[in-house]
Amino acid sequence: MTTRADYHSNCEYNESFQDYLENDAPVIKEVAEKLLASRKTLREFEYLPAAPRPDATSVWKIVKLARRLIFPGFFEPPQIHREQNPEYSIAQTVSALYSLLSKEILASIRHDHIRYGRACVNCRQQSRLLARQFILEIPRLRQVLAADVLATKEGDPAAGSHLDQIILCYPGVLATLVYRLAHELLIRDVPFIPRIMTEQAHSTTGIDIHPGAKIGESFFIDHGTGVVIGETSIIGQRVRIYQGVTLGALSLPKDAGVSLKGHKRHPTIEDDVIIYSGATILGGETTIGARSVIGGNVWLTDSVPPDTKVFIKKPELIFINNKA
Amino acid sequence: MTTRADYHSNCEYNESFQDYLENDAPVIKEVAEKLLASRKTLREFEYLPAAPRPDATSVWKIVKLARRLIFPGFFEPPQIHREQNPEYSIAQTVSALYSLLSKEILASIRHDHIRYGRACVNCRQQSRLLARQFILEIPRLRQVLAADVLATKEGDPAAGSHLDQIILCYPGVLATLVYRLAHELLIRDVPFIPRIMTEQAHSTTGIDIHPGAKIGESFFIDHGTGVVIGETSIIGQRVRIYQGVTLGALSLPKDAGVSLKGHKRHPTIEDDVIIYSGATILGGETTIGARSVIGGNVWLTDSVPPDTKVFIKKPELIFINNKA
Amino acid sequence: MTTRADYHSNCEYNESFQDYLENDAPVIKEVAEKLLASRKTLREFEYLPAAPRPDATSVWKIVKLARRLIFPGFFEPPQIHREQNPEYSIAQTVSALYSLLSKEILASIRHDHIRYGRACVNCRQQSRLLARQFILEIPRLRQVLAADVLATKEGDPAAGSHLDQIILCYPGVLATLVYRLAHELLIRDVPFIPRIMTEQAHSTTGIDIHPGAKIGESFFIDHGTGVVIGETSIIGQRVRIYQGVTLGALSLPKDAGVSLKGHKRHPTIEDDVIIYSGATILGGETTIGARSVIGGNVWLTDSVPPDTKVFIKKPELIFINNKA
Repeated sequence: MTTRADYHSNCEYNESFQDYLENDAPVIKEVAEKLLASRKTLREFEYLPAAPRPDATSVWKIVKLARRLIFPGFFEPPQIHREQNPEYSIAQTVSALYSLLSKEILASIRHDHIRYGRACVNCRQQSRLLARQFILEIPRLRQVLAADVLATKEGDPAAGSHLDQIILCYPGVLATLVYRLAHELLIRDVPFIPRIMTEQAHSTTGIDIHPGAKIGESFFIDHGTGVVIGETSIIGQRVRIYQGVTLGALSLPKDAGVSLKGHKRHPTIEDDVIIYSGATILGGETTIGARSVIGGNVWLTDSVPPDTKVFIKKPELIFINNKA
Repeated sequence: MTTRADYHSNCEYNESFQDYLENDAPVIKEVAEKLLASRKTLREFEYLPAAPRPDATSVWKIVKLARRLIFPGFFEPPQIHREQNPEYSIAQTVSALYSLLSKEILASIRHDHIRYGRACVNCRQQSRLLARQFILEIPRLRQVLAADVLATKEGDPAAGSHLDQIILCYPGVLATLVYRLAHELLIRDVPFIPRIMTEQAHSTTGIDIHPGAKIGESFFIDHGTGVVIGETSIIGQRVRIYQGVTLGALSLPKDAGVSLKGHKRHPTIEDDVIIYSGATILGGETTIGARSVIGGNVWLTDSVPPDTKVFIKKPELIFINNKA
Repeated sequence: MTTRADYHSNCEYNESFQDYLENDAPVIKEVAEKLLASRKTLREFEYLPAAPRPDATSVWKIVKLARRLIFPGFFEPPQIHREQNPEYSIAQTVSALYSLLSKEILASIRHDHIRYGRACVNCRQQSRLLARQFILEIPRLRQVLAADVLATKEGDPAAGSHLDQIILCYPGVLATLVYRLAHELLIRDVPFIPRIMTEQAHSTTGIDIHPGAKIGESFFIDHGTGVVIGETSIIGQRVRIYQGVTLGALSLPKDAGVSLKGHKRHPTIEDDVIIYSGATILGGETTIGARSVIGGNVWLTDSVPPDTKVFIKKPELIFINNKA
């Protein structure tokens, strides 16, 4: 038996289906056809080959596995701890990291091969070799990141004496960790993955470090939002950087894109330099000498000798008393 | 048989339950009652009507479906590629986008109707019409976004010659894509969804573009953290913007909120302008003439004629030698 | 029967397994052994005790539960609304919040006990007491956040007259809400959780508010990317802050970290002050008097009396006509 409500709802359904056929379906078809037609002229802007490309989600998993090796126990699911045998869990994590990384390196090398004709002889062996080289760096990176954490504790009065909060929460530590992992891949000529890594850290922390930069030990970034460290920057040991600092390139002619790739376009910062918030240092020949202090909002395009404090002459302020 | 351990744990359980009844339950009740009582005076700050409101998770899915149409293959799960037939997968994605979008537009129109009394005659038909109009723009947006990617390649020496890394990783491309989608909805008077979209892009990239801004083709934002582009900004073609640039409003009297809505409060940037990092350009009558270059940290509240370079006169720096 | 393909694939499998045994397995073993050996010298940089530590995912759930009580209906899954009985759902959410929070407070107190020897007598009771004190603040925080939302509506012409968009989308509202929750835990001496909360808000919004800061009612942050509000800042009522504003400490000697913990190092901002984008105000003795307006990019290390407008004297600009 069909009730009145059924009838009404059938009726509505039929009307709606009719409407779909008359109005929606032709539009969907038209859009799909236009998009298919655009494939001919926009070939570079699609990626539909047979081989898988590197996958951002897997790349972030690689970062997380490496982080679990560098700071064991801090980033595991909390319930593991009771039963966990460190010998077993560390070896297992190394193995998982190796396996996922060699797979993603293979995808990135093949992608580069298919898209840009990069030579790829024995890709699979090459990927495994690169992944082995990478994991062999992890014990050293553990020492390096520990020094970064200690530098953070020394530099930030709000951190107090507890390292755990720094390891668990500080965006500067995360950005530095991701940069150090990405840099190891970039110097081995692994395509795509390094930049995917650092852009995810950029999104999470607001700190944009190009994986090509060279950064010494005991590095500390405080707050960090807006920091930009360009591709060819060189940074010494025990350097401290605050939010909004740019290590950038001088202004470029509009067609400079491809031709300047590889040239040193970003500054050199020597050991023990402090750069306060909002300072901008530009140019590949600009060197900030050791132990110098660059004040907030300073804008520099020339080198500074060692042991120099550079402050902006305070711009004149205008004070108006509203009550007068 | 009850062992000693059982007894102990029962005992602990009983004590704990007793404690819950005596200490926790009354507090939970008190808090819930106070919150319920506050519903009378804070009616505007709750949303408990019958109709669903637009959902941020679904809105972000809409962005991702549109992105798969604009850059096919780059953002699919990587394993699809082997079996994928582009004809089929593109039509299916258009259909999924249409279906989810018309549902969310309906939710947003109804929300506006229920909360703010906006007229909603034949909401369902209207939502479908708006969703059809939106998807019909996608093939054109594909061309526009391709030009944005090419402008990025031209402008960034670190990008090299490979477009794939730009499409996969660059935050400026993501922010521009989301802005272009949101703008198409905003000009059709769809409430809520445009701002939900651009705030998600803001959270992901640090780039805050109001969906009401008008931005021409071949737009390039480098690094991007801290960029703010206000609601009534107008930006020409081939404009290039760096991190920390603000296109904002002049300072407002404290009660300006509602009354200034809709007025042109943000600047106009003509074709081929470059604006370097940290520059601030304010005011609805401020126009930066074509082909001008605005240097880093410049603060402008007046117009600039075409073909002008504007640099800050370097503020005097004070150098102190620590060793002296 | 073994086909040629099977043979080939077995063969490939065997070769690959042989390769794994010869090349990969020894490297994985070597890395794991080095990492295990490093446990002796890097004991502070691992966390492998028996008790669970506070978990960032659970901490973010606590924020979301509290947000559902403060703005009921705005952040529930959209389909609930039809059947929802507010009496029931609010009490249930209070109960869920209490339960998760007391568990995470317990983890954080025990963590502090195990790692840093903090006294923890009757930890479980103490955690429940702290959680009860926290939820008792929620009705008051509801009033306070409502005032923050109204201040946002008053201050932002782009917001229009609709509160819903402000509650649903505005990053300043989210950052302020998370700060207010974290502050209630910090003043009760709950370790770790407050900073985990505010760093997640920092990651989501680009706004970095230390949970130790004191912030009055009707607070409005616009855009927000790059805002830094230091640990000992004191902010009055009806204060308005724009993107890129820093309330920071004066420059510190390099070993200042631990010794300055707890001292007032950040400024005081009195009632009804507006601070425009990019302004930097530093130092624990710096006070901005009531009703003052601090212009964009102003850099202040000295106090300003009430009712003062402070603007930067525009730095001289250099205009070059490219056509000349």
